Amino acid sequence: MNNASIITIGDELLIGQVIDTNSAFIAQQLNKVGIAVKRRVAVGDNWDEIWTALDEQQQHADIILITGGLGPTADDITKPLLCNYFNGEMIVNEEVKQHVIDIFTKLNRPIIDRNLKQAEVPSTCEVLFNKRGTAPGMWFEKNNKIFVSTPGVPFEMQGLMIEEVIPKLLKQFNFPHIAHRTLLTAGVGESFLAELINHFEEALPPHIKLAYLPNFGMVRLRLSTSGNNKVEVEKEIDNYFTQLQTLVAPHLVTNEDEPMEKVVAKLLLKNNKTIGTAESCTGGYISHLITAMAGSSAYYKGSVIAYAYDAKENLLYVDKTELETKGAVSKSIVTQMTKGALKSLNVDYAIAVSGIMGPGGETPDKPVGTVWIGVGNADEIITQKMHFRFDRQRNIQLTATAALNMLRQFILSHS
Amino acid sequence: MNNASIITIGDELLIGQVIDTNSAFIAQQLNKVGIAVKRRVAVGDNWDEIWTALDEQQQHADIILITGGLGPTADDITKPLLCNYFNGEMIVNEEVKQHVIDIFTKLNRPIIDRNLKQAEVPSTCEVLFNKRGTAPGMWFEKNNKIFVSTPGVPFEMQGLMIEEVIPKLLKQFNFPHIAHRTLLTAGVGESFLAELINHFEEALPPHIKLAYLPNFGMVRLRLSTSGNNKVEVEKEIDNYFTQLQTLVAPHLVTNEDEPMEKVVAKLLLKNNKTIGTAESCTGGYISHLITAMAGSSAYYKGSVIAYAYDAKENLLYVDKTELETKGAVSKSIVTQMTKGALKSLNVDYAIAVSGIMGPGGETPDKPVGTVWIGVGNADEIITQKMHFRFDRQRNIQLTATAALNMLRQFILSHS
Repeated sequence: MNNASIITIGDELLIGQVIDTNSAFIAQQLNKVGIAVKRRVAVGDNWDEIWTALDEQQQHADIILITGGLGPTADDITKPLLCNYFNGEMIVNEEVKQHVIDIFTKLNRPIIDRNLKQAEVPSTCEVLFNKRGTAPGMWFEKNNKIFVSTPGVPFEMQGLMIEEVIPKLLKQFNFPHIAHRTLLTAGVGESFLAELINHFEEALPPHIKLAYLPNFGMVRLRLSTSGNNKVEVEKEIDNYFTQLQTLVAPHLVTNEDEPMEKVVAKLLLKNNKTIGTAESCTGGYISHLITAMAGSSAYYKGSVIAYAYDAKENLLYVDKTELETKGAVSKSIVTQMTKGALKSLNVDYAIAVSGIMGPGGETPDKPVGTVWIGVGNADEIITQKMHFRFDRQRNIQLTATAALNMLRQFILSHS
Repeated sequence: MNNASIITIGDELLIGQVIDTNSAFIAQQLNKVGIAVKRRVAVGDNWDEIWTALDEQQQHADIILITGGLGPTADDITKPLLCNYFNGEMIVNEEVKQHVIDIFTKLNRPIIDRNLKQAEVPSTCEVLFNKRGTAPGMWFEKNNKIFVSTPGVPFEMQGLMIEEVIPKLLKQFNFPHIAHRTLLTAGVGESFLAELINHFEEALPPHIKLAYLPNFGMVRLRLSTSGNNKVEVEKEIDNYFTQLQTLVAPHLVTNEDEPMEKVVAKLLLKNNKTIGTAESCTGGYISHLITAMAGSSAYYKGSVIAYAYDAKENLLYVDKTELETKGAVSKSIVTQMTKGALKSLNVDYAIAVSGIMGPGGETPDKPVGTVWIGVGNADEIITQKMHFRFDRQRNIQLTATAALNMLRQFILSHS
């Protein structure tokens, strides 16, 4: 069995200035083709640290993916280090050189030495052509281990992984088949679920792993296994997955590894219905979740983000007197907002939310985390009051999850 | 000098199902008090892997922060492993037990054995009380090294780090002073900046580090250094930072480590002005960025997210004939959207965006990535056409950055 390690390089990772999304992407791609990631390690822009990480990771894995530390600026030391580590010398790659020249010519910018330096690569590597940027990927082999270096810009790294690295790995190895099955639940906690599936979990054979992945009011449950016989592996995991779905059925959102907003999107597309939102406290986050999905214009028409009272009055037809007497965070106002969105946006379904996300803004009877959610169509509007108890960002995310889940249930029970 | 290593535990990290934000948070907190993070490593829920990581990381660092792998469900093996690693036995901590009982009593939920198990801790640890959840933090000392374990739920881990771990570390050690200075530029690339500050960078003494952190059309430049004399360290880095700001002045957004939306927020607050957005292609993302900041209701009134033509017509007063003849992605429409937002939302400044984010939707004369941006006030509206060449998510983010930067420049030149 071939295992992989991921090394990410950059001081910014060690001072916490950026969040490492690259490792997750690389891990996903490797897992898909049956390469298990054993560990991920992040080191700074420091010669000795990078060198040690290379030495160490080949003890743990056969394939070492390195990302970051390549680029046109002088804080990058990865390329000369790799040249040294793999006993090469720097040579100019003519294809990369021409590519760099082409990019700058197209952008109508002067080419400086710093950019042309991107075309220099260690003589001991195989160049992986990066059509999205100037820094090429590099493939090395040593002691029967494979080392692949890609730039840290996510867009460029992703292109290289999908188009160059994965196909080349598949050509070279025969990987065991890894199978995952993931379902999504909402509205119940991790320990409640654990109790619910207690007997199932205890009866699982050791080669089938179950993981709980809690996230913003939702819990994903994932079964994983691997083996050489793809058909048998898939059949066995499907059998357990069916049992699991039955056990969590009342809380099940989807039996695929997809976000809540995709589930809602599929429902709307299937029923040929449109949606819009009226958001106060979530400030456009629900709208953003919906529109982050490609193709959302087929079912999403728009939103009114009404933070101020006059926006609620003018664009959502909310009653001014009630706003002043009952306050924006109330059953009455969120019902009016839902109705207003249905009308303003001319949609089949609407979501409305109004709440206090914190840190400020609370009143004696409405603490931070108090949220009213409304969902409905022309015939019926239902509302629910929620209490979240976290920080602003998390309260916004939890509100969005709860609102989308309410709409999902509303559509299911009204179609 | 005391160094730290961060170990994150969880299979979900190795299959890329979740993005590790915990490491970044922990690294930030440690850096703030002068503890340098040497490396971060992620391992799966596997006894041997976790054990090896503990063995290895104490070779690299004096303080080992462990997060994840604690919780009420059975996929967690970290606690028994730590008990074993530090030669303890499991004992019940009465304070934690009472806390667990209190939480479930308050939630009016039955307490199950699985929850009560959270009160069991290794006898060789000092318990760090977790008031936000049921799984306590644990502090171990062995071979003159410190090991701290916290649960992986970000909210709980963050509370424990700030209230328990950092204060306890500060009591125990005398750390050197670490200083960072970060500025933000927008609208120019990394290699252009590198050229601009070439001489400055080459003249930097080796103990002052410069890093380039590109992100969504912006580049942050960070200077870092450390030393025992806090006053001298701060004075020296301030001197270099002043030089750096002067060099990049035309592209400088802020000389603090803060996001673009905070810079815009400060400008609006200072001038006592309000803002709203009219978004098509960004689908609420600009609005979300603005409202993710606490206190944004002081200057943000609302947004119209108009994906569909009729939403543009009804809520932003865009001319129907022009929409049909010129298309939504045009100078004329984005100008009308800006004007419409100023009126609909009754704000001092408005941002409008309309574009094609991909993957579908392009026309022969408007490829994916074509975006029109408008910003303005009652007196003047300016527009700009942009071409981004990335995927949907990145195009949305780049559009948001460009629009906020345009507004920032507009406010600066009109006040």
